[in-house]
Amino acid sequence: MPPRFSIDDILAKPSGASFFDGFIAQSHEKGGLISAGLPDRDGVLVVMDGKLRVYLIGEDREMTLFYLVPGDMFCTHSGCLIEAVEKTDIRYADIGTFAKKLEDNPSLAFGLIGILGRAMMGCMRTIEDLVFRDIKQRLARFFLDRARVAQGNAGTEVPLFIELTVEEIANLVGSSRQTTSAALNALMREGLISRKGRSNYTVADVGRLAAAAGTAFPPPDETTRPARQADGGR
Amino acid sequence: MPPRFSIDDILAKPSGASFFDGFIAQSHEKGGLISAGLPDRDGVLVVMDGKLRVYLIGEDREMTLFYLVPGDMFCTHSGCLIEAVEKTDIRYADIGTFAKKLEDNPSLAFGLIGILGRAMMGCMRTIEDLVFRDIKQRLARFFLDRARVAQGNAGTEVPLFIELTVEEIANLVGSSRQTTSAALNALMREGLISRKGRSNYTVADVGRLAAAAGTAFPPPDETTRPARQADGGR
Ligand code: HEM
Ligand code: HEM
Repeated sequence: MPPRFSIDDILAKPSGASFFDGFIAQSHEKGGLISAGLPDRDGVLVVMDGKLRVYLIGEDREMTLFYLVPGDMFCTHSGCLIEAVEKTDIRYADIGTFAKKLEDNPSLAFGLIGILGRAMMGCMRTIEDLVFRDIKQRLARFFLDRARVAQGNAGTEVPLFIELTVEEIANLVGSSRQTTSAALNALMREGLISRKGRSNYTVADVGRLAAAAGTAFPPPDETTRPARQADGGR
Repeated sequence: MPPRFSIDDILAKPSGASFFDGFIAQSHEKGGLISAGLPDRDGVLVVMDGKLRVYLIGEDREMTLFYLVPGDMFCTHSGCLIEAVEKTDIRYADIGTFAKKLEDNPSLAFGLIGILGRAMMGCMRTIEDLVFRDIKQRLARFFLDRARVAQGNAGTEVPLFIELTVEEIANLVGSSRQTTSAALNALMREGLISRKGRSNYTVADVGRLAAAAGTAFPPPDETTRPARQADGGR
């Protein structure tokens, strides 16, 4: 599951009412750069409307790590670039203002620890993909994640609306556009995925797609790692 | 720089004195598994003596994410496997006990946020390596990191003691032993690295090694990303 940066549960708490005190409203046009990954401006942002992309750049390619949607919080000191995928309104507070809030409200710190943990989990999933799966498996896993969100069960057909272009998908699975479209064609030739127009895909059988992604489906309640028992030490 | 999970600055604070209340001492033999990456036991551990390895496993390979040395804190709910690289003594507290400490002592939460941030930075560096660098560049970057720790400047020769086997280095750079040793031979043929015996390496010229790693050295005070200016929004 893509990691969640949502502060809904933080806002739902009594202390949530004053959460936005000290934040300033900012709006960014499509393509606007909120952070160039440089340690120039340290603060915390919350997406109110629109969508941001958190990514890394190399010489000739980009790697998308996360998309941030309304309700999601992130910082500008992660070293990543942050770009507006569409016209986006955010609330921004510099790190000092936010640090003060953390001191006054320990439950905020708990919320942030959960967010950072899930962000790290997202990074580790990406590392697992990059090291243990080839492009076709990573692409299959991308569609599998979407099918899971649409609550598809093994054996059933799942229609999916994918708002991302093949280039944007390529940036998510850490590969070039050409290699990604070749892998997509392979999945289609094998009848795992079909596509009508730009954004309408259909997963023919979620169970078969999971096998192609090299993961079990539905995921066993414990991770697929062999249960080599942890010894409790002495 | 490899991420730091050290709680030294937390322990140095007045509130540090009671930090270990509620922790229990455990010792693990070399090869012992502290966590199998399963959600069976949720707690926080601090390495007192020895060395642990945090890693992910695929079908035929492993990916080392971090090594934990004395003074480092980690958790058992990250989904990673944690193994004792040598006989290791830890202090362990279940997550409930530790959560209570966080509530009573907000500065602890700040320390943890910094640790999680640096852990995430470590993951993002690994992603950057896997997506934008080939094995030879990743291996060059591994030796460059070590040379930086040994404070080597461009143009100078830096002797390095590397306690890791080629297999362990391969697990760190996310590749197989064969490919990694071929890349090591290439770096040696190009005169960038020389090796005497199992663990004694010499970096001939740190500046040339940085170029081979595809990174600037010394790192400019700002990251090497082109400074496409972030717009402050309206
Ligand atoms: C160095 C110490 C720690 C590390 C490296 C760490 C790492 C992680 C990781 C990787 C995850 C994602 C796991 C998953 O969702 O599969 C996570 C989740 C989480 N962690 Fe930690 N954690 C640490 C300490 C703590 C502590 C001390 C607490 C609170 C007492 C905590 C609370 C949480 C929470 C609430 C989640 C979110 C669970 C969820 O929503 O799925 N973590 N952490
Ligand atoms: C969703 C929100 C956040 C994310 C995703 C995040 C992410 C990160 C990352 C990736 C780093 C490593 C950067 C580097 O060392 O180059 C980091 C470091 C750090 N972050 Fe955050 N952060 C967040 C919020 C915060 C907040 C609210 C605070 C405190 C008010 C904070 C305090 C720190 C500290 C103290 C470090 C360590 C800096 C160092 O020792 O180098 N972070 N964070």
